[in-house]
Amino acid sequence: METPARTGTATACELAFDVFARACPSRETLEHVTGRWGGLTLGALYEGSCRFNELRRRVDGVSEKMLSQTLHALERDGLVHREAQPTNPPRVDYELTPMGREVATRLLTLIRFLEEGMPQVLAAREAYDEARGAL
Amino acid sequence: METPARTGTATACELAFDVFARACPSRETLEHVTGRWGGLTLGALYEGSCRFNELRRRVDGVSEKMLSQTLHALERDGLVHREAQPTNPPRVDYELTPMGREVATRLLTLIRFLEEGMPQVLAAREAYDEARGAL
Repeated sequence: METPARTGTATACELAFDVFARACPSRETLEHVTGRWGGLTLGALYEGSCRFNELRRRVDGVSEKMLSQTLHALERDGLVHREAQPTNPPRVDYELTPMGREVATRLLTLIRFLEEGMPQVLAAREAYDEARGAL
Repeated sequence: METPARTGTATACELAFDVFARACPSRETLEHVTGRWGGLTLGALYEGSCRFNELRRRVDGVSEKMLSQTLHALERDGLVHREAQPTNPPRVDYELTPMGREVATRLLTLIRFLEEGMPQVLAAREAYDEARGAL
């Protein structure tokens, strides 16, 4: 798994973390944060702490299993905090850690930009498909 | 595919694009931009236009097929421009469009933050694994 990093002869992450190097653990975290469900989960939690089922409704389309896996990965990376109340039945809340909030802020900047740019994206798709004679 | 949007009774994207709604096309674009290879491809092109094989070296670990699919999706969304020179053999360069550059800027802000935060992420993982008695 020795992979040259951007910096030249150094192996991946010897000097600095670099998502472009395949062996760098930062790439895994980038995937947790921007993967199919990770980004939406962080975005949803940005609005406040949430119970599992609330989160599942907010992240429209996620399965129970995928949401559970996503939350575990984000919790392990220190981006999400899981708080179990000692009640019966136990009540479990999820919230962003301070670092998770920093990550979500940057992610939401990207998400908002894309949402606002969608008319332009859809026009580009139409032009692309027309140029290729697709329906 | 009728999915209630955040805004209440409206169906997805009737009023505004919303990545949290499963039927919204902005979710697909978010996935092109932040998917396993999309983000790294945009990040690599941020440094300047690139030929296919240069890009493949830069995005360490991507296969030819995946890079090709990734570039097509980004080109169709209007984020990447493909320029074929009328030479023999043809020379093809890829570069960011102005909108692609805006997207990449925001994405790189997130990537840089994660790279810098990796010591904290790795410490969180260690604490998480220790608390669970894992190796």
